[in-house]
Amino acid sequence: MPEFLRLWSPVEAREHWLRHITYRVETEEVPTAEALGRVLAEAVRAQEPIPGFPRSTVDGYAVRAADTHGASDSLPAYLQVVGEVPMGAAPEFQIGPGQAALIHTGGMLPPGADAVVMVEYTQQSREGEVEVLRAVAVGENVIQPGEDVEAGQEVMPAGVRLRPAEIGGLMALGRTRVRVARRPRVGILSTGDEVVPPDRALQPGQVRDVNSYTIAALVQERGGVPVRYGILPDDYQALLTAARRAFEETDMVVITAGSSASTRDMTVQVLNALGEPGVLVHGLRIKPGKPTILAVAEGRPLLGLPGNPVSALVNAWHLVVPALDRLQGVAVTRPRPRVKARLAGNLTSEAGREEWYPVRLRTADDGTFEAEPIHYKSNLIFRLVWADGLVPVPENATGLPAGAEVEVFLW
Amino acid sequence: MPEFLRLWSPVEAREHWLRHITYRVETEEVPTAEALGRVLAEAVRAQEPIPGFPRSTVDGYAVRAADTHGASDSLPAYLQVVGEVPMGAAPEFQIGPGQAALIHTGGMLPPGADAVVMVEYTQQSREGEVEVLRAVAVGENVIQPGEDVEAGQEVMPAGVRLRPAEIGGLMALGRTRVRVARRPRVGILSTGDEVVPPDRALQPGQVRDVNSYTIAALVQERGGVPVRYGILPDDYQALLTAARRAFEETDMVVITAGSSASTRDMTVQVLNALGEPGVLVHGLRIKPGKPTILAVAEGRPLLGLPGNPVSALVNAWHLVVPALDRLQGVAVTRPRPRVKARLAGNLTSEAGREEWYPVRLRTADDGTFEAEPIHYKSNLIFRLVWADGLVPVPENATGLPAGAEVEVFLW
Repeated sequence: MPEFLRLWSPVEAREHWLRHITYRVETEEVPTAEALGRVLAEAVRAQEPIPGFPRSTVDGYAVRAADTHGASDSLPAYLQVVGEVPMGAAPEFQIGPGQAALIHTGGMLPPGADAVVMVEYTQQSREGEVEVLRAVAVGENVIQPGEDVEAGQEVMPAGVRLRPAEIGGLMALGRTRVRVARRPRVGILSTGDEVVPPDRALQPGQVRDVNSYTIAALVQERGGVPVRYGILPDDYQALLTAARRAFEETDMVVITAGSSASTRDMTVQVLNALGEPGVLVHGLRIKPGKPTILAVAEGRPLLGLPGNPVSALVNAWHLVVPALDRLQGVAVTRPRPRVKARLAGNLTSEAGREEWYPVRLRTADDGTFEAEPIHYKSNLIFRLVWADGLVPVPENATGLPAGAEVEVFLW
Repeated sequence: MPEFLRLWSPVEAREHWLRHITYRVETEEVPTAEALGRVLAEAVRAQEPIPGFPRSTVDGYAVRAADTHGASDSLPAYLQVVGEVPMGAAPEFQIGPGQAALIHTGGMLPPGADAVVMVEYTQQSREGEVEVLRAVAVGENVIQPGEDVEAGQEVMPAGVRLRPAEIGGLMALGRTRVRVARRPRVGILSTGDEVVPPDRALQPGQVRDVNSYTIAALVQERGGVPVRYGILPDDYQALLTAARRAFEETDMVVITAGSSASTRDMTVQVLNALGEPGVLVHGLRIKPGKPTILAVAEGRPLLGLPGNPVSALVNAWHLVVPALDRLQGVAVTRPRPRVKARLAGNLTSEAGREEWYPVRLRTADDGTFEAEPIHYKSNLIFRLVWADGLVPVPENATGLPAGAEVEVFLW
């Protein structure tokens, strides 16, 4: 059974595969208010400076800085108050030498003023006059026009995934519509004569379909649109027909193989039949997930995941997520979220393969995290349900001792 | 201007506020396949063991372990092959002494067998016979019934937010519908005479509404339903009327104040008018976000955020997120995602307040992260657009030096 001719390092395999994914989904224009999580398909430039006018950052008095030179508690500068700056409009007065105006945070500096004295450093003694108790420098407590963004400046490159901050930035620029990548559609097929739909009572030897649903949830979580093609029997022609339909109707096809070696070989044949170049990688130096199959047809990603629910979900997380990014033209990748923790038990691992251990996090008395390994045989989905994240043991290590500082990848 | 009578520590203020949030949203039953990100409103127990039958974890031969005792390459055990275990059905034969059956990964052990020999440790010499080259122990390469989950076992407590793994676990149990907390509705009001809708051309002194949209996006990202109530002028009666309507129609009200002290005081009055106990906290020892207002009415959370877009978004992230969890009865909190990084520049900070600095992450040559501080004045939303996350400088520190190891909270 020469199932694995060559086992790939997980990182090399992923990079090799991603390089072959040349297909990109189309773009579409959507309201910015509905664009959270979408990937920007155009670079965004500011049409105008932000702010568009000199703005006070404090409540106080707009002044000419030179008039406050040497001012102190014992020797205040006395300035004539010529008005109050209205919010949301340009002041209709100027500040001449020896003059000041009441201004609120966010207010527009009147012509002639070049700084703002915080209200805390002033006092009012006589009507129409303010005592300034501290000197300010030119520009102090003022945001200059264009200080956030200059007119014409590129504020976001194409390929950024929009977070709440980006939504706000677009609104600040008046960009209420924005061009983004269409959500990629991912066709998901489950195979195995032993697999039945979740709403079915189990007969001896049967298990319920888990993989269609965990992978669909992951796709949804990462901004894609899952399309389930049901459960296929261990039959080449039936699987090929369903996979072809999925390949025509979606941007990416994921097949979770039946559990046995023979059904995995069937997945290889089906993926090869979908188009060139076909299967690129069959077998990774990783646990769980060694029998993973990476393929490409017509520039679009195809994936054969192990049937075991733990392997399927962990490797979908390793592979489906970057493939979705690739399809949408993501150019700004953000790190995978994680937390630092101390291992609460030993992790054993074989050198020569990367292992990903599920762990549960506990907060220690000093506020740091402890990661308790969850030991398991393959196939036990509830070990992942009870896990807060995964700890990688690198390929060249033979385990990690209790007490070691590790990074727990959250998911 | 006795605006802040007492400044609270951010952590104490948050805990104090959350304790007063006693209201919980109703629950509803939804299809499990659509329940990603929702919060479980019931504990889930297994109705049946998983797996329901002894399952092989490998491809090989089901045997009686005793028959393999002492087997080796030079002295194989010869066993009679009595059949092949079908996938998805109970085998219709038994394994007697000296017998074996071909079995695939995931297949059901036939009666009489108590272990599986991996196919790699067997060879076939004669029709109907297998040579076993290695001994196996009882139970080896077998998952026993109930080894993942026992019948009656609680597999998920109420209050868990459903991730892809939980969706899979529910499906494995045949739970295709599940009771979850309704999505909390969050009413969002922007105030300020200077604030105009994003689609409006700006007049001097005006800025576009950013806060309604960043907070709405954050609420959406965290499983809530944002309801925007528009932009209110700096007018007590208008703001109160809109806030009352929002309070009637939603589960939580967030007001982003106008920028100046006087409009913040107006927010305090409005929040106090909505119900008992009203404002609990006004002013935090935090930057950005000192003027934040925490209030509760009828057990429901109310929040007054500073008008400055950076303060508003950062503090919404600190406060709106745990309040949404609280409203949904989240009992299992997961850590906020972060990455470890080395500071690429100094961070200065005043002792006595917690500061959250935006940083940009760079991957260093050795694969670790460097965090480059983004220095800014308040109000500059694009500093957050360019940030990968925030680095906290604790209250008792006066800054962090370049080269320090920090945790960058991603958002």
